[in-house]
Amino acid sequence: MVIEKKLQEMGLELPELPAPSGLYVPARRVGNLIYIAGQTPDAHGKRQFVGVVGEDLSIEDGKRSAQVSALNILAVLKAELGDLDKVKQFVQIISYVRCSKGFGDHPAVIDGASELFKNLYGEAGLAARLAIGANELPGGSATEIMAVVEVEG
Amino acid sequence: MVIEKKLQEMGLELPELPAPSGLYVPARRVGNLIYIAGQTPDAHGKRQFVGVVGEDLSIEDGKRSAQVSALNILAVLKAELGDLDKVKQFVQIISYVRCSKGFGDHPAVIDGASELFKNLYGEAGLAARLAIGANELPGGSATEIMAVVEVEG
Amino acid sequence: MVIEKKLQEMGLELPELPAPSGLYVPARRVGNLIYIAGQTPDAHGKRQFVGVVGEDLSIEDGKRSAQVSALNILAVLKAELGDLDKVKQFVQIISYVRCSKGFGDHPAVIDGASELFKNLYGEAGLAARLAIGANELPGGSATEIMAVVEVEG
Repeated sequence: MVIEKKLQEMGLELPELPAPSGLYVPARRVGNLIYIAGQTPDAHGKRQFVGVVGEDLSIEDGKRSAQVSALNILAVLKAELGDLDKVKQFVQIISYVRCSKGFGDHPAVIDGASELFKNLYGEAGLAARLAIGANELPGGSATEIMAVVEVEG
Repeated sequence: MVIEKKLQEMGLELPELPAPSGLYVPARRVGNLIYIAGQTPDAHGKRQFVGVVGEDLSIEDGKRSAQVSALNILAVLKAELGDLDKVKQFVQIISYVRCSKGFGDHPAVIDGASELFKNLYGEAGLAARLAIGANELPGGSATEIMAVVEVEG
Repeated sequence: MVIEKKLQEMGLELPELPAPSGLYVPARRVGNLIYIAGQTPDAHGKRQFVGVVGEDLSIEDGKRSAQVSALNILAVLKAELGDLDKVKQFVQIISYVRCSKGFGDHPAVIDGASELFKNLYGEAGLAARLAIGANELPGGSATEIMAVVEVEG
């Protein structure tokens, strides 16, 4: 349980597996790929970052929101794999920042998620990434992140 | 033809395969995965739901728009597979609701599509899903839905 | 080097591999699929198309922006494969046009990218595509395009 130990050392904890907010599943596995549903910044049964980055929320707030979205991705992987050490590499990240007119720093915001994955998995924590704006996200969330992850066979 | 019979019993019919509105293909197959192009709410050669959910259109309208987008996904699968019974599971859904400022009920809208897939395929009809807002969709469509589906070998 | 020769004959050149603007990798390979990060319209170390299509920029500008995004996808593939002739088919394209209220011609804009891929690879250059609006893209880019490409084994 190397990865979970690292998380603890960083003072972070896995959120409970978020209950789907609609008719979908948290993850689907095909071969060694796990497709993870879009994750909003939820913890302790509550959305943690609601607002518009560049308006109500700063880039720093957005980064923390992205980190909480990322922790939910890890919670889904933990539920799917039993052990986070079985992750081989992050393949694809599709991510959105709810943002104000003229805001252009989406990569910096989503780095809040990628930094966590990199600290845990090194180079394998980085993915082919898309990080752009959205006019609105579910329940006013500041960030939403979807991922495809390759795992050990 | 179990699935098509179910569709008939629900009083629904597959739309004609939509003509691509640009330089793309309706679907690509790699191994047992079918990648389906983004589907707008078209039927009988006409866009059925044009408008902004939360402004011109209600959540209920949006759900019906999502269902029409979903029917087009099925039409593409039918053209690709010949028989909708060959679908094994829905893997990934990436979906957008054209919505007004402050609208946050994207999952409820896209449930109009997922409900159809679930009624047809049970648990296998659910996918790892992203359902968020878009400022604008092609031709003013209310919804657009892209999918990756696993099929029998 | 058939494809690169075609590019030259069209008077186009591959841009330098864009430096990631955050914590991600340009591409990830899983089996014979290459997942490519979202590409903005950069060349010569500079963003070429900044603005809002339908407002500051015309559809024709947007198409040229999409072509530059597409050239960056090719640059990533070249770095990954060594030879662009090893591309088997374009599988999936997820693409965004930064656009004004009421703009609905996203497919025409992204055709600027797909036209290039088609001119180079024929039918295999077309993908299952999503082409929609975004309220904002990184650094004010007019277009951003992500792709999944199948390559020779």
